[in-house]
Amino acid sequence: MENTANERPLVLITNDDSINAPGLHVLVRLTAEWADVVCVAPKYPQSGKSSSMTFMDPLRIDEVVPAEPVEGVRYYTVDDGTPVDCVKIALYTLLPRRPDFVFSGINHGSNAGVNVLYSGTMGAALEGAVEGIPSAGFSLLHHSMAADFSLSESLVRDIMGETRRDPPAAGVCLNINIPARVVPAGVRRCRACRGRWSDGYERYTDPHGREFYMLAGRFINEEPDATDTDEYWLARGYISVVPVSCDMTAR
Amino acid sequence: MENTANERPLVLITNDDSINAPGLHVLVRLTAEWADVVCVAPKYPQSGKSSSMTFMDPLRIDEVVPAEPVEGVRYYTVDDGTPVDCVKIALYTLLPRRPDFVFSGINHGSNAGVNVLYSGTMGAALEGAVEGIPSAGFSLLHHSMAADFSLSESLVRDIMGETRRDPPAAGVCLNINIPARVVPAGVRRCRACRGRWSDGYERYTDPHGREFYMLAGRFINEEPDATDTDEYWLARGYISVVPVSCDMTAR
Repeated sequence: MENTANERPLVLITNDDSINAPGLHVLVRLTAEWADVVCVAPKYPQSGKSSSMTFMDPLRIDEVVPAEPVEGVRYYTVDDGTPVDCVKIALYTLLPRRPDFVFSGINHGSNAGVNVLYSGTMGAALEGAVEGIPSAGFSLLHHSMAADFSLSESLVRDIMGETRRDPPAAGVCLNINIPARVVPAGVRRCRACRGRWSDGYERYTDPHGREFYMLAGRFINEEPDATDTDEYWLARGYISVVPVSCDMTAR
Repeated sequence: MENTANERPLVLITNDDSINAPGLHVLVRLTAEWADVVCVAPKYPQSGKSSSMTFMDPLRIDEVVPAEPVEGVRYYTVDDGTPVDCVKIALYTLLPRRPDFVFSGINHGSNAGVNVLYSGTMGAALEGAVEGIPSAGFSLLHHSMAADFSLSESLVRDIMGETRRDPPAAGVCLNINIPARVVPAGVRRCRACRGRWSDGYERYTDPHGREFYMLAGRFINEEPDATDTDEYWLARGYISVVPVSCDMTAR
């Protein structure tokens, strides 16, 4: 069934912080202002899961009611599902028709720069792009579950409107990062900043005498003076919008 | 400590099929012909794990001796580690110096076309590229653990030699796919074919009466007639070499 002029758009929403993350419910609420929304989220947190997907193990789906449901929205969780699993299983088993958009987030934490590679939030948006559906991942630069999403609500609405009018090209999705603790100064289209995590590991000894390691990464911006990168504009209080390609061939 | 002229190169080797996969040991053996090799592999299979990484859980390392060790090579496993975890923990805790190359594979199964997005093998190679180390992922188009790697050994040696002489640019790694069951007709540099997995899911009922789903994907080649793609040349018996960028910004 195709979308027709007198229907509201259908938007699939997922994230990587799980059904319990406040950022997911902000994204659902803002999207439900103009669209029919189906929310299919991981049951458990899936941060750092990139585009990983499950093809050897069973996936179980539950319809659930979150703490503050938005009227008319249906919510599902996928047991042990990654963000990519949520998109795939929604498209192929849950949705009444092909959605007009796939949105992911709002993530609790940055997915700017090289983080796009590791991000489960962006894994879901890329999966939408692979399917040829206009898609975007939204992330706030604040890890706390108590992060304040309200300061950027108005600009996120603007970006959604712009994405509806001018959706990304086939095979491309948007990586939208939002500065924390400020009313954003504006929106900048830019490219991903070059950088990496210099990953020291901390070494520990467990109660049984066995050593283990935990990642203690620190982000290294390899081009702090480049004025066309997401990190540059985020540091100056702007929302960054980077078009991200699911074709990784170097040109 | 930097590499000097009278030293053999140092190569870090990992994979996503785990320390027990025959393809890993083929890659170690061929590389050890010209380099010092340290092998740091996942303890358990990590197919489809993309660039996912572990940052909330402990990682445990064991030095191990595989069934047919190559003399002079040290082998380690990382408990619950993804391919990216193996590269990171090797670089930051295990290796005596920065390696000259990061190789991943030889994967049991194709990573051509859109598979690069989901591939743990390529996640490891991309991590090398993020670190600025010349890197490559190798994959044979055969899923069986009994796959025959011998038909392509000579050309894999050639590709390694070429990669030493002309390493990929910073931020770029190579995605090398090898046809199965034939002596490859040659090597072609190409781009990733556009396509996707049309993911039907099979529905089952478990012994407790609960439904679950399992992925039953079928690859759809969206440009079967394009003569510059990896899928095109693989289907004609050639090894494909695609340069893959860790910067996913769409241009």
